[in-house]
Amino acid sequence: MARFGLLVKMTAAAGQGYALIKIMKEAATLMKEAPGCDSYVVHAAADDNDIIWITEIWRDEQSHEQSLSVEGVGELIGQARPMIGGMEMTKLRTLTD
Amino acid sequence: MARFGLLVKMTAAAGQGYALIKIMKEAATLMKEAPGCDSYVVHAAADDNDIIWITEIWRDEQSHEQSLSVEGVGELIGQARPMIGGMEMTKLRTLTD
Repeated sequence: MARFGLLVKMTAAAGQGYALIKIMKEAATLMKEAPGCDSYVVHAAADDNDIIWITEIWRDEQSHEQSLSVEGVGELIGQARPMIGGMEMTKLRTLTD
Repeated sequence: MARFGLLVKMTAAAGQGYALIKIMKEAATLMKEAPGCDSYVVHAAADDNDIIWITEIWRDEQSHEQSLSVEGVGELIGQARPMIGGMEMTKLRTLTD
């Protein structure tokens, strides 16, 4: 069965890219330990520090939903929210290892 | 130092999604063995088999460029080309493991 993939593109509010990356790196450390998380990687656009991509692979969509209640995640989301100018999410079926 | 990330979004020519996915899965098997390739994963959009995403992580951009000359890759690209209606590539700096 295909796993659940998620692409998240965040555009930082003006001047907030560096601070947002710092928080998302902390989120990655937490998320990688969440049950069902196979991959959670933080990237910045090659030419723009204010555009941040997260590429995620989960055992299934439910595992992803449950990760939002992992200890510390809610706090990080609260810190990140005012730094985020825009966000797009794309749900995927992950077909290879 | 940040690694080199690449997001590739392919839109299959009409009705060619399934065949294109099959070829990109073969490409993934080859690419994962290429020097400097840390990750090469094929996904389809959750709701559209004709939209294919590849998420890649390489040691550096040069490793990615050299992968195009890995044995068998040129042949797969040749097979895939007529099935691709559109393609967008986004270069990334990969910031976490």
